[in-house]
Amino acid sequence: MTDHATAAAFGRDVGRLTVGGVPVDRLAERAGSTPFFAYDRRLLTERIGLLRATLPPEVKLSYAVKANPMPAVVQHLAGLVDGLDVASALEMRTALDTTVPPERISFAGPGKTDAELRSAIAAGVTVEMESENEADRVAALGRVLGIRPRVAVRVNPDFAVKGSGMRLGGGPQQFGVDAERVPALLKDLERADVDFLGFHIFAGSQNLHADILAEAQRRTVDLAVRLAGESPLPVRYLNLGGGFGIPYHDRDVPLDLAAIGANLTELVAGPIRAGLPRARVAIELGRYIVGEAGVYVTRVIDRKESRGTTFLVVDGGLHHQLAASGNFGQVIRRNYPLGVATRIDGEPEETVTVVGCLCTPLDLLGKDVSLPRAGVGDLIVLFQAGAYGLTASPTAFLGHPAPAEMLL
Amino acid sequence: MTDHATAAAFGRDVGRLTVGGVPVDRLAERAGSTPFFAYDRRLLTERIGLLRATLPPEVKLSYAVKANPMPAVVQHLAGLVDGLDVASALEMRTALDTTVPPERISFAGPGKTDAELRSAIAAGVTVEMESENEADRVAALGRVLGIRPRVAVRVNPDFAVKGSGMRLGGGPQQFGVDAERVPALLKDLERADVDFLGFHIFAGSQNLHADILAEAQRRTVDLAVRLAGESPLPVRYLNLGGGFGIPYHDRDVPLDLAAIGANLTELVAGPIRAGLPRARVAIELGRYIVGEAGVYVTRVIDRKESRGTTFLVVDGGLHHQLAASGNFGQVIRRNYPLGVATRIDGEPEETVTVVGCLCTPLDLLGKDVSLPRAGVGDLIVLFQAGAYGLTASPTAFLGHPAPAEMLL
Repeated sequence: MTDHATAAAFGRDVGRLTVGGVPVDRLAERAGSTPFFAYDRRLLTERIGLLRATLPPEVKLSYAVKANPMPAVVQHLAGLVDGLDVASALEMRTALDTTVPPERISFAGPGKTDAELRSAIAAGVTVEMESENEADRVAALGRVLGIRPRVAVRVNPDFAVKGSGMRLGGGPQQFGVDAERVPALLKDLERADVDFLGFHIFAGSQNLHADILAEAQRRTVDLAVRLAGESPLPVRYLNLGGGFGIPYHDRDVPLDLAAIGANLTELVAGPIRAGLPRARVAIELGRYIVGEAGVYVTRVIDRKESRGTTFLVVDGGLHHQLAASGNFGQVIRRNYPLGVATRIDGEPEETVTVVGCLCTPLDLLGKDVSLPRAGVGDLIVLFQAGAYGLTASPTAFLGHPAPAEMLL
Repeated sequence: MTDHATAAAFGRDVGRLTVGGVPVDRLAERAGSTPFFAYDRRLLTERIGLLRATLPPEVKLSYAVKANPMPAVVQHLAGLVDGLDVASALEMRTALDTTVPPERISFAGPGKTDAELRSAIAAGVTVEMESENEADRVAALGRVLGIRPRVAVRVNPDFAVKGSGMRLGGGPQQFGVDAERVPALLKDLERADVDFLGFHIFAGSQNLHADILAEAQRRTVDLAVRLAGESPLPVRYLNLGGGFGIPYHDRDVPLDLAAIGANLTELVAGPIRAGLPRARVAIELGRYIVGEAGVYVTRVIDRKESRGTTFLVVDGGLHHQLAASGNFGQVIRRNYPLGVATRIDGEPEETVTVVGCLCTPLDLLGKDVSLPRAGVGDLIVLFQAGAYGLTASPTAFLGHPAPAEMLL
């Protein structure tokens, strides 16, 4: 079904969806081919504005580059947020090319190589250490380089957050150091020649329930205060993670950001002021910042009937938008919102199934969708394509050309 | 668990796995970095030899390039098979760079663009047409180019094969023309200026049950004979598809190829000789040819304990081997066979969980696996990585470097 509210966020012009004020058919000509991704600069700015207006000013905003590492997107956001979070050397280089100072760039991830750690230490970014072994390696590489590494400890909390799209904390995890082992590590860090900043504690992602997120934030702050109490070193940094979800499916209710803001305001005024008075507190958001600001646009190549089903075959597919096909870790496949970009105001006229161009039945973009009639040449838009789209898809699958990406 | 039978197919040298006779640690040095993919030329040759020895000589072998489009692999196989099947313009160019004549290259896929069709017609490859609309476009482009297109009709059968990993035929499908609509299309093709060769009928893939595959082949031949009977044009080609599966999991029983060979021998001697006397019959295999001939090798970066679980964190992950993480269309995640490549003869000593380097809990390569003890620096091998590995994975996810691919 065409999601009219989603479409309205972008804009329309004579029945066509616009991105950055430019109609999609013109964007297709500008790109030189379909399919393509288009991200709306204004929507990014507005989303940061919403976060600034809703969250307390004491909570700093970090953008998780992995959600959308397109350099133009990262450059734009760099001017709006307080920090960047990266997960690889390439993401780090993209972040270092912005005006965000290195000390506001944090590098997390469970399998950092020595080469990545050397780069990070040399650049002066904050290494969020995921294990005791990594802490040893960071200290040793710092000695080799003659540079005091800036470090934080990623903590695997001793609680789990229910209701997250993905759980990254609680129980045994590849992420972080178990909370109960952190005090011993901090004693070691005291003796090591590293600049210890604080903690990164992150319990889950893609969560639409403000009450669950608020509880996770409270428990995260409690844990950080407890750990700070046992720390021989002052705690000057607390990365609360993020986990703010966006709606992908019909019945998804958007996150109540105001409730999150109220909760963070209480935490800042209460336990954080009391227990972590010197800590710079940050939340780290990726999907929530960019996810709704992007669309994937693909052209109808064939319209065919098969035993009572009308198929629209488009020139894009799961090689560019894997999650929309339901094949990236999802247990149950549900349609992402989509519409006919060249008839964006049209009322539903028929039920069709939208499939990609790949020679596999997995390449299903919309099953039994109510749409205005679309023919060969019409453009189909998939919404909520700004995060974990192109880079989270098997772009080389079957050897089709790479799509253009545009920031408008 | 280390799959000793799988490891034995490659070879060993002083406790290390070898590929093409070269120990994996030496391969890692040769590649210059880990992770990497290595494919064994001898195993490819032996697999084709097995197929030649088991299937009747009247059934020609086509390699489905999409399973592994590495040019060196395609070049090697081109000297051993009778034809190549491609699914995009890039795969077609790779195929045309071999000594396989264009008329033995077939191009299938539901969303072929005009540009792809023009290329295919100009190259003289066989276009396997997926719809009436595509047939019209092929004929029109042939007129524009002044070239008579070589075409086959992909048929969506009027039966479904149960027990396939993926169903590509039966019911409504984006693939092919519904069997009951084919006679009308053939009448149109008689009037069009195209060189009609025959049919491509393909009911499923990744099937380990010889009885089901044999039944599918019988029903496919029956359908082709029926359609040939209604065809105003002679049928000179029948692509039976493939669908031969390989074992990925502990309890998977390998396909009984002898039973498939016996069934095809009966079909050739019986209904094919009687009903399709002039048809060149081919089967099209991808995964079955290359899947077991490749490994993915990745190095242990960290070994960590978390609440009773030992994690081996490696420098590879789902960005190179998505299917092994259970996140590419699988409903239930199960481990692919893996082992410690640098201790390939070692007996199981401990239960560990092998995770990739990506900052997501999806990046799980082996859960609760019994392995010889592996430490930082050891190499972990994932078997059954020759098909739908690198190109079917989100290589840009989190921005890690591309792995080397080597054919040995």
